[in-house]
This record gives sequence, structure tokens and C-alpha cells, in this order.
Amino acid sequence: MSSGAAERGGRLRSHWGWGWADREPDRAALEAIAPVVRERLGFGAERVEVPVPLDAVDVAPSRLHPPESLAGILSGDPGERVRHAMGRAYRDVVRGFRGHFERVPDLVAYPGDEDDLRRVLELCSDRRLAAIPFGGGTSVVGGIEPRVGHGYRGTVSIDLSRLSGIVAIDEVSGSALIRAGTTGPALEDGLRPHGLTLRHFPQSFEFSTLGGWIATRAGGHFATLQTHIDDLVDSIRALTPTGPWESRRLPGSGAGPSPDRMLLGSEGILGVITEAWVQVRPRPAFKASRPVLFGSFAAGVEAARVIAQSGLHPSNCRLLDPLEAATTGAGDGAAAVLILGFESAFGPVDEPLRLAVECAADLGGTPEAERAGAAAGADSAATSWRSAFLEAPYLRDSLVALGVISETFETAITWDRFAAFHDRVTEAARRAVAEVCDAPADGEGAPRVMCRFTHLYPTGPAPYYTVLAKARRGAEVRQWDEIKSAVSEAIVSAGGTITHHHAVGRDHRRWYDLQRPDRFAAALAGAKAAVDPARVMNPGVLIDPAPPSV
Amino acid sequence: MSSGAAERGGRLRSHWGWGWADREPDRAALEAIAPVVRERLGFGAERVEVPVPLDAVDVAPSRLHPPESLAGILSGDPGERVRHAMGRAYRDVVRGFRGHFERVPDLVAYPGDEDDLRRVLELCSDRRLAAIPFGGGTSVVGGIEPRVGHGYRGTVSIDLSRLSGIVAIDEVSGSALIRAGTTGPALEDGLRPHGLTLRHFPQSFEFSTLGGWIATRAGGHFATLQTHIDDLVDSIRALTPTGPWESRRLPGSGAGPSPDRMLLGSEGILGVITEAWVQVRPRPAFKASRPVLFGSFAAGVEAARVIAQSGLHPSNCRLLDPLEAATTGAGDGAAAVLILGFESAFGPVDEPLRLAVECAADLGGTPEAERAGAAAGADSAATSWRSAFLEAPYLRDSLVALGVISETFETAITWDRFAAFHDRVTEAARRAVAEVCDAPADGEGAPRVMCRFTHLYPTGPAPYYTVLAKARRGAEVRQWDEIKSAVSEAIVSAGGTITHHHAVGRDHRRWYDLQRPDRFAAALAGAKAAVDPARVMNPGVLIDPAPPSV
Repeated sequence: MSSGAAERGGRLRSHWGWGWADREPDRAALEAIAPVVRERLGFGAERVEVPVPLDAVDVAPSRLHPPESLAGILSGDPGERVRHAMGRAYRDVVRGFRGHFERVPDLVAYPGDEDDLRRVLELCSDRRLAAIPFGGGTSVVGGIEPRVGHGYRGTVSIDLSRLSGIVAIDEVSGSALIRAGTTGPALEDGLRPHGLTLRHFPQSFEFSTLGGWIATRAGGHFATLQTHIDDLVDSIRALTPTGPWESRRLPGSGAGPSPDRMLLGSEGILGVITEAWVQVRPRPAFKASRPVLFGSFAAGVEAARVIAQSGLHPSNCRLLDPLEAATTGAGDGAAAVLILGFESAFGPVDEPLRLAVECAADLGGTPEAERAGAAAGADSAATSWRSAFLEAPYLRDSLVALGVISETFETAITWDRFAAFHDRVTEAARRAVAEVCDAPADGEGAPRVMCRFTHLYPTGPAPYYTVLAKARRGAEVRQWDEIKSAVSEAIVSAGGTITHHHAVGRDHRRWYDLQRPDRFAAALAGAKAAVDPARVMNPGVLIDPAPPSV
Repeated sequence: MSSGAAERGGRLRSHWGWGWADREPDRAALEAIAPVVRERLGFGAERVEVPVPLDAVDVAPSRLHPPESLAGILSGDPGERVRHAMGRAYRDVVRGFRGHFERVPDLVAYPGDEDDLRRVLELCSDRRLAAIPFGGGTSVVGGIEPRVGHGYRGTVSIDLSRLSGIVAIDEVSGSALIRAGTTGPALEDGLRPHGLTLRHFPQSFEFSTLGGWIATRAGGHFATLQTHIDDLVDSIRALTPTGPWESRRLPGSGAGPSPDRMLLGSEGILGVITEAWVQVRPRPAFKASRPVLFGSFAAGVEAARVIAQSGLHPSNCRLLDPLEAATTGAGDGAAAVLILGFESAFGPVDEPLRLAVECAADLGGTPEAERAGAAAGADSAATSWRSAFLEAPYLRDSLVALGVISETFETAITWDRFAAFHDRVTEAARRAVAEVCDAPADGEGAPRVMCRFTHLYPTGPAPYYTVLAKARRGAEVRQWDEIKSAVSEAIVSAGGTITHHHAVGRDHRRWYDLQRPDRFAAALAGAKAAVDPARVMNPGVLIDPAPPSV
């Protein structure tokens, strides 16, 4: 049997780290970079650790035996179960690294078509097994972990990798029907020969799937306009335990509340998304990009606000604070950097770039030399940025081995409240990290708390915070939990959203429950009861009694 | 007591026609224009009729007595009840004109604040009275009509006109908190001193309200990008029978399914929307517009498609077929007209207009002389177009008196299916109208079936069909029902949506039930049961057992 999303063309996924098993960092390489990391960050362990190998992981025996009728679809193989046990938050990676797989699904299902899937959901409803949809396994919020609370006789991870591929392309309308289990690269590979692209590049792009993006309202590559996958979806088909749910393929509609918008962000609690019609577009032939430096983060924020409200709709408008710019190599640490970019499939974009740069300069920015005007040059600059962006999760694996905690927080807030919000969140993060990591708050060896804007709306930004600090070996999960709690508490009590594009899952439940309207939660529970009466779909996520925290 | 939305500053709404009672057409004016209309359309009655006056309308006595505790809030006045009995579809106007008010709410409520509203909903739940939210009363789908099916001891129309006004304006973020009962003009009047605008102009603008727009997913002024009110909403507060539902004010979020998107289009079945934070923007200072003529509608469609997919995002991109252009005075009937317009608060828009016009010309279009380059001229052209657009419903009142049936159908469909869809819908409309009106299909006296695009998406247009035909006096409702059925059947079976921005209400129920996913309807019913356990909120709309058809 295929091990599905945990394998591709014979290449295996790491059982603990971000990506492929053959790309796990090896000891020699780690030994070589350890001093560089310590030098650069000012902290990090002297000693490099290595992960517990898969065959040394202690896996609880499966509580379930696959029925014969589903013999070709269900697997109880311990290795496969381990590979479907956790997502890829820092918390997950460090647990996997140490071989701590407290909860492992009892079975992994690999449905090959919708009828297989129907039979799996039927089994789960009949036997009261928790059914957990698994796309690329890249959740950073515990969304695919079998932490389901009591009352279930077992857990089944439903791996959708066999439900993949492009079903149809409509070049006239610019849309494509794509199966939910299709990963980012497979999706783009299928569109490329037609000169088309979905142009949705979350950081998890290499492994995550269209179905996962829809279920979690993933954020894409565009800084303005269509930032969430939500706005690229024309229709969705899902399978609920009580039958299929398929909306009409329409460019727009006003017929009642949108059925698609109830599935978008539903994180598997209503059913399993099986395919969707999504908007695709001609690949951009014209690109131009230019960084603008600001003496302070606040000045960059003001420029980002004005540009977000200008109607110019830049495809890229990422603001990095000085520390983030220095850490990622985009700046020298003395200035905040606003990276402005425009692209089009139809004509030159130099004019809108010129207007946006002029606007930024009027607000005190200093434009750097133009990065590229023509397509080829711009393409290579954009490609190299994107490669670095997509490589970042691999780097995190090394940081685990090197004793560095690395965590991110992402949110959104209106412009009027941003300054106070930012002070409060960064202060909470700094204090929590210093306490938990027993580190100085400033100077040599101090943890790093830095911020960038990933997406911009006319009414506010989506700030993204990164925390880097020295880990206490063996205590990383507790450290992570304390930092996570302090910062999440600050985000939600200062008026932000607990997630802009990472989803709620199990890790964000406590704060999500404070944020969402109580009557909406009741309505969503009512909706779930109607389509999933046995309550088997991804319990613990969004609305069920909150799951155990570990 | 104020008669609320049926009155403003002492000025009364017509009990049957579109607008103000003092603007009802009078007999002398009608006699004068009757020959002009007959000459222009080729049909229309010889004899002008006049409406049944309000005091001659036979109103069933109210079945309810307002409890003393709500004495200042509830009214049983027959005139007020009549003014809250029907929306403003052609079907409603002709019934009102003839004094046929088959169903009239038993009481009209005028809550002055949310606590009043809470007490009204409590009364409805306790006594099993159908509660029907009433914004501007401009529904064209029977959305505010007390056609609620059996099982209710009475009906209460909840007039939200006292819950109006702008609560707060945040100029930094570009957003405003506005009460649901605020009409279009009041909303814009409140924003204008701040140099801001919501820029949402549905045809019902003069009377319809923010709450009504949200409840029905109204379509606005922009041809591309933010076409529905959905995309202008940052948060919503509603009162359900079981308590308030208020989302966080956020520029964007990915935390679970959007609570706002469940209220958007809910048409009063979950609760009463009381206020919302909406995106506002600086008033545009730069505008430019230019019509482009095409030898055929099909050629205009192709240009509209390419422009909709170009990323140019025109604020106006309305395509009129030759007959529509001739009927509305935008053309001579020999050509289809594509009206291209751009606007900005920040800088000149001549360049994007030039690009769009060039694109249209490349596809066979002939640009007319530029209508305006500078702000002032463009403003006056846009204003005159908008005035004509907003006056159209008044014209319809006269057509009723002159024996002309006038009806519109609006939908959306992807580009690849548009040509076949359009043939099928226009053919169904032509055939139904010819049969029902006993008129020739072509030539002198033939009914008019015409089409324009009101909104464009990258993946498809929102076509808007207008039908004009000779009425059989006294049989108009039956004629309307037959035409409506034939065209709606064609729209839905050819893959369109039963409504792009007019909502479902009671008149679209039969086709909506064929269109929406069955599992979604079950989920929505489950959501409703959770927040409205007594099932009193606007029964008959969206999901309850379908209401009686008349």
C-alpha cells in the first residue's frame, strides 16, 4: 500500500521534521553550522542533538482492526501511523525529534475515490471513530492530531493523497476543477503547460494541499486583494457523513449565505472536502519590485497603510521591522524594509510601482535601487525570495537540533489600533521569552522578537511575529506552551484575531473560544449536528468540548 | 408614533408604488406620456388606470393586541400595516395598485434600541409570532411579506428605521460603525463631511438600508472587485432570539468559518442585524469614462471577459445589448455598448482607461469620444447616469398605470457557458412573454427582452435581463408568475444562480431549493434551530417549508 501524503514517488517524509526524510539535517552539517548560528543569534546550544530514529519510537498498539471490506484502504502500519500523528508546529517537530508520539491514529485510511471515502466515514460513524482529514500534514495548530477527547473508540487519519490531480481546466473562464489532495507543486505543474497558475503560495506550499488550504482558509502569496484562498474558490464539493455537499460553480452569487463560506475554515468538522473549482490566471509576464527603507518601523507602517488604502493593489507589500530585515538578510538592522512589488500577465507594471514608491518616498522612505524592470530579472528575484520563504521550515528542523526555539504568531488588527496592539504583543512576547528561557531581555544573547506584515487590507494589516530564543533541552514543549499562552493571550485581549491564516486547530482553541461570537458557535454546532450526527468529524477542533492540551 | 421607514420627516411612502406618496404619478401626467410610451415600445394600454387609494383598501383586522409593556413600540394602525405588507417587485406594485393586500402584518414594531428589539423578539418567541425584519421595504423577492405558512398566531413586521445613524468613524482605518436601519442617503450624508463614502449604490439606494443590504447580500456600484456588500463588511452585530451575535472588528481573519458570512444573505432567519463596521474610502476625485461600441453583443461579451480577467479592475464595465442600449438611451439600437469607467481618490485614471479602451478596440470595439477626463466633468456624467439608474423604479410605477409589464431577472454564470446560457434564457423569456401576453414574437408590438452585465468577475459575468410587455389588465400577477417561472426555470436548469444580488426571499424559493446543496440547507436549518429555537425569524425564507405562492 502507498503511504500516501507521507510518501511521493518512493520518497519518504521525515517522521519528525518538516520535509523529506532524505533532507533531514545530518550531524556533520549541524556541527558545522552550530557555531555560525550561535555567533549570529547570540544563543544556541554548544552540543548538537540528533533525532530519535523511527524504529526506536515507542508506538502504542492500534486499538482497531481494519474490517476486511476496507482491506485495501486502511492501514495499521506503525510507521504510517507515526507519520500521520502530528502536524509541523515547532511543538510537533520537537516532540517528533525526541520520539514523543503520545497519540497516534489507530488506522490510516487512503481512499482512492469518493466511494472509498464514503465507506470510511460510514465505518467511523457506525463504530464511533474520530475521523481526521489529512492533506499535507503541515498543520501548525494541532489540526490533524488525534487529540479528540473522550467518547471515541479509536481514531482514523484520512490521508487524501490518492484523491489528487487536476480534473478539468476551463481556459475561457480561467478556472480549474482540482481534487482536494493535490499538493501545491502538483497543482502548479498541472496548470503550467496551459500557461496558467493558481498563484497561491502559502509557506507550506511544497506539501500542503488544496483541500487543506480551503479547510483552514490558507493565506497566499498576494499581499493585497486575494490574500486568502477563500477569494479564489468558485465552488466546493465535500463529503459529509450524511452525504455529499456540492455548491454550484458560479463566479458570484447572492443566493442565501454562501455554502462555500461555511466549508471555508471548517477544518474538517463538517466533512471532507474532495474537490473545488478555483480561479486560475495567466502566468505573470511583467514584474517589478523595489525595496524602500524607513528609519523606523512606525514610519514603514504608515506607508504600508497609505498604500493599502490607495487602490494600487500591489501584489507584494511586505514590511519587515529592522530586526526581521537583519535576521532574514533583507537589511542591515538599521532600517525597516518595505518590499513593493507588482505583476501582470498583460502589460508593464512600472507605472503602478513608480506611484507606490513615490508614495512611500513622500512618507519618508528611501527607495533602494530598482531590483528589476524586465520580466526575466524580476522573475529570478521573485523566485529566489520564494525559494528562501519555502525553505524556512527546513531551517527550523536544524534549529531544533541546535537548541533554538523558533515560533511564529500571526494575526490581524485594524490600523487605528495597530501601534498599541504591537507594543502590547511584543512586550508580552519579550517578557514571556525572557522568563521562560532565562535570558537577558536586551543585548548579547537576548531572544529575538520580530515582526513583518504578510498581508494588507484597506482597514488593517496582518502582522506576523517570529520569536527565536535559547531552548532548555528537554523542556522545549513547556517553554513553547508558556510563550504561546502569553502571546496568544495578548493578541486576543488586545483585539486581534488568534489566527489570520494558520487556522484554529486544537492549539488555538482556548483563545478562539474567547474570540468567536457565542451565538455563532451555537449555530455552527447546530450545523455540524445536522450533517455529522455521530460527531465523528475532527472532534476537538473549533466547537467540540476543548481537547486535552497535550 | 413614527411610521418609521414608511415615513421620513413627515413625508410618507406610497402604499403601493416605489417611492414617496407625493411622487406617485398623477392621471394628467400619465395621460400625457401614454401615447409616447405606446409609440416608443409599440405596446401599452390605450386607457390609463389609477391606483386604489389607501382609504379604500380592505385590510383584515389585526389578530393581535400589543401588550401594554410594548405600547410605545408596537402599532396596529391599518395604514402602517399596509405600508409594511409588501416589497416592491412588479408583482407587489401591481397588487398594491389594485388594492390587493391579501396578507398584512398584524403589528408593526418600531424598536428604538436593542433592548426594545430584544423585547419584541421575546414576545414573538413566547407567543409564536412570525418576526419579519423590515429595512427599507424594497425587497423584490417577497422577503418582507408576511407569507409565513401555518403554525403562527400572528405576524410582526419589525421596522428598523429608528435603529439608524452613524455611530463612529475611524478615519485612520477607513471604517465606520453604522446602525442597520440607516438608509443609503442618510449613510452617505453622514460620511460626506468626513470626505468619505461607502460607495455602495444598489438601485434601491434611496430607501434600502445597510442592514437590508447585509441580510440580502446586495450588489453595489462597482462592476469589479467589491461588487457585493459582503466584501465591505469588517464585522456585524445581530440580535438573535437567544441573544446577541457580534463578530470582532478585524480587517481579515482565518479563525474558523467567517461568522459574518453566515449572517450575510441570512435574510432575517437567524436574527436581526443591528449594526456593522464597514469599509469606507475617500471620495473619488479622479474619474474617467468612455463608451465603446460593438457590432454584436457577442463581441462585447468577449471584450468584457478579457477586461474582467486583465487585472485592470475598472469601477464601471457595463455592457448593454443593442436593444437595452436603445431603450435606455445609451445607444441607437445598432450596437452593443460597453461603458468603461475608472475612478480614484489618489491620482489620474486616464492610463488604466486608455489600456482598457485599447483592449476593447483590439477586440473589434469602436471607442466613442471620451466622456470626461477631469474630475468635474466626469462627476457630472457619473451623477447623471446614477440619477437615471435610481429613478428607474419610479418609472415602473407609471408603466403599471399604463398597462406595461416590467420585470427583471439577474443571475451569474461562468464565461464558458454564457453564450448557450444566454440563448436559452432569452428564448425562454421570449416564448413565455409572447404566450402570456398574446403578442407577436418579433416586429411591431413584440415584447422586449434585453440584457446588460451589471457586475463582472474574472470567471464570469452577472447578466441582468429586463422584460417589457403588454399587460392584460387585471391578470398581471398571473402573467408575471408565468413569465417568472419560465425564466427562473431556464436560469437554474442552465447552470446559473437564481439570484446574484436580489436575494431569495419567498418568490425565489422554488428554484433556490434546486440550486443550494441539500447538506448545506440541512446545516443552515441546524444553525437556525440553535439560535432561533421557536422558529419565529422570517419563516418561509431560505429554509423553512416553502410558503404559499400567493
